[in-house]
Amino acid sequence: MSPTTRYPQAAIEADPTVPIIRITRDFRATPAQLMRAHTDPDLFMSWVGPDSISSKVIEWDVRNGGSWRYVSTDGNGEYGFRGCFHTVTDDTIVQTFTFEGMPDAVSLEKLWFEDLGDGTTRLHAQSLCESFEDRDGWLASGMEVGVNEGYAHLDRILEAGEV
Amino acid sequence: MSPTTRYPQAAIEADPTVPIIRITRDFRATPAQLMRAHTDPDLFMSWVGPDSISSKVIEWDVRNGGSWRYVSTDGNGEYGFRGCFHTVTDDTIVQTFTFEGMPDAVSLEKLWFEDLGDGTTRLHAQSLCESFEDRDGWLASGMEVGVNEGYAHLDRILEAGEV
Repeated sequence: MSPTTRYPQAAIEADPTVPIIRITRDFRATPAQLMRAHTDPDLFMSWVGPDSISSKVIEWDVRNGGSWRYVSTDGNGEYGFRGCFHTVTDDTIVQTFTFEGMPDAVSLEKLWFEDLGDGTTRLHAQSLCESFEDRDGWLASGMEVGVNEGYAHLDRILEAGEV
Repeated sequence: MSPTTRYPQAAIEADPTVPIIRITRDFRATPAQLMRAHTDPDLFMSWVGPDSISSKVIEWDVRNGGSWRYVSTDGNGEYGFRGCFHTVTDDTIVQTFTFEGMPDAVSLEKLWFEDLGDGTTRLHAQSLCESFEDRDGWLASGMEVGVNEGYAHLDRILEAGEV
């Protein structure tokens, strides 16, 4: 049975009891396509983040215990991001995440894909921070621009058959 | 100035507001000795965990983005643990941690060493879980036996000049 609530736009929510950000977003795609869009480095770089940046993979080793790093560039400079893939399965990624401009803030991210059974798949993402201050700092950072523009870009490359 | 409170035994505390376990423990050692005791695989295997187990490193790559795995054995069987080293500096380790018997429970651990300036060093450890249920499950698991016996063993090998 398909769920009633649909998420054509990302819902970005602050958990009330733990320092977690949760994102929910539906795509016209299979779980395998969404995994590919997040694990193939060229595909991932093509859509992730706001439209104003372009991103380049520096390191990308998709396996339990592998690590990753990429650098995004806009008119103002470069922004590095890095982490490690703790777990990668057919429909789940658990990884660490650090924006290199704030090297002491490490979050633990979990991403999984739920087949809704009608040609759409729901992306579930959560970012666990070590304090509510860190979590609320991310929420106040304008992160929703990158999330929404990135997912809209992913919609377009799915529609174009590029994933 | 030396702090008033001393921790010759580990203080294991549940944070009241976030799903974190904090451990504080003082050692007659330098920060460099405690780093070595946690990053040299043979040394680490020699003291970690309860006295009833012996442990063997399977994978050990101490660097930002490296991964680790070890297996502990007692009379009842084998227990695997794995994770990745997100950050390793002179006095800090940030890593993921999973007990392979509960593969979906991933915690983010931070360990740092504070020189108290009188020949002793304070170990600070925190384990961040994604829920209070997971955190409280760890606290109820008997983990203090492994923590206390392991650190007592570390005291002995420090005293013996083996670190």
